[in-house]
Amino acid sequence: MTDSRTPETPEDLDRRHSEKMAKKKAVRDKIVAGKTIEKGLLIVHTGKGKGKSTAGFGMVLRAIGHGFKVGVVQYVKGAWDTGERTVLERFPDQVTIKALGEGFTWETQDRTRDVAAARAAWNATLEMLADPEIRMVLMDEINIVLRYGYLPVDEVIEGLSRRHPDTHVIATGRNAPDALIAAADLVTEMTMIKHPFRDGVKAQAGVEF
Amino acid sequence: MTDSRTPETPEDLDRRHSEKMAKKKAVRDKIVAGKTIEKGLLIVHTGKGKGKSTAGFGMVLRAIGHGFKVGVVQYVKGAWDTGERTVLERFPDQVTIKALGEGFTWETQDRTRDVAAARAAWNATLEMLADPEIRMVLMDEINIVLRYGYLPVDEVIEGLSRRHPDTHVIATGRNAPDALIAAADLVTEMTMIKHPFRDGVKAQAGVEF
Repeated sequence: MTDSRTPETPEDLDRRHSEKMAKKKAVRDKIVAGKTIEKGLLIVHTGKGKGKSTAGFGMVLRAIGHGFKVGVVQYVKGAWDTGERTVLERFPDQVTIKALGEGFTWETQDRTRDVAAARAAWNATLEMLADPEIRMVLMDEINIVLRYGYLPVDEVIEGLSRRHPDTHVIATGRNAPDALIAAADLVTEMTMIKHPFRDGVKAQAGVEF
Repeated sequence: MTDSRTPETPEDLDRRHSEKMAKKKAVRDKIVAGKTIEKGLLIVHTGKGKGKSTAGFGMVLRAIGHGFKVGVVQYVKGAWDTGERTVLERFPDQVTIKALGEGFTWETQDRTRDVAAARAAWNATLEMLADPEIRMVLMDEINIVLRYGYLPVDEVIEGLSRRHPDTHVIATGRNAPDALIAAADLVTEMTMIKHPFRDGVKAQAGVEF
């Protein structure tokens, strides 16, 4: 079989590419121009994959880079990972951190204490949400606390709805309750496709903590 | 219908919870004890959802917090977001940043220039991978470059395989090629569940950039 078409030259390829990209840009510019609302978002990172807290931590640092004040409440782990803490402590004028969780729930094995810790963390969050200078609040691992019923999800959603309209709030953790997802503006599910733990690789500094 | 069982007291609830969590902890401790391998990981963040670059940025900062040196190569965007740059610049002794992308491809509309930029970014990456002091390298948005064929994926995988065995590498961007996923140790897909752009909300500092 012969092909009677003229073979495509590098110049043809470049031209086709340029046309395709110009179209993409036009579509994108139009979409961006249609977006005019600015408001504080309720953002949820959920799913079984990695990156939920890490992306929240990244957003906090980006907000710090923009000069914003931010608040971080750790709902479940006993303490922030040393790596994260060390970085956040470089910005003492901009970051308020509250680490009120008592460690993962299977570490404490004490429901009453976990509920009290969750309540204290929520009170700390409400304080941050009431501070007009704080532009972003990370509620790290709150989804787990909600999942176990340590805090009523309705109460949390109601409290968030009364925040300053410019304040962004991020809720992380697997198994985000449906009611929280319904109330959220931006929801990302982190899905695990492949994990090295399966092959015997241990948790490592910089990756897991 | 009557229920003849004794109603569960708060003490029963606490005891059941404690037993359940003790079991969870035992399972978890056993899993962790079985993980003994330490090695540099090839990590991929892909999918259409948000958080791919942000989680990479968060890992870089966590590594900085552990005292590691890290490298960042921006493959596609013209410049790092100001928020991210400002934060990374606080750690000049630990971070090397190369921003070699020329902006999103639909901005340049020039394939030849994009290919040259991708090649320059890859050369910068290889330099970082050859530096024994650098423990983590973020190849931000490299997946897009691979997707467009600006760099051959086989060449990239081969280059990564020759890195120092302790060095972690992170590749971000949607549409990660199958060959890269096959070569990776840890792959997370970020899936968009809900996005405020749909409701006319514009990109905002601290959230999108």
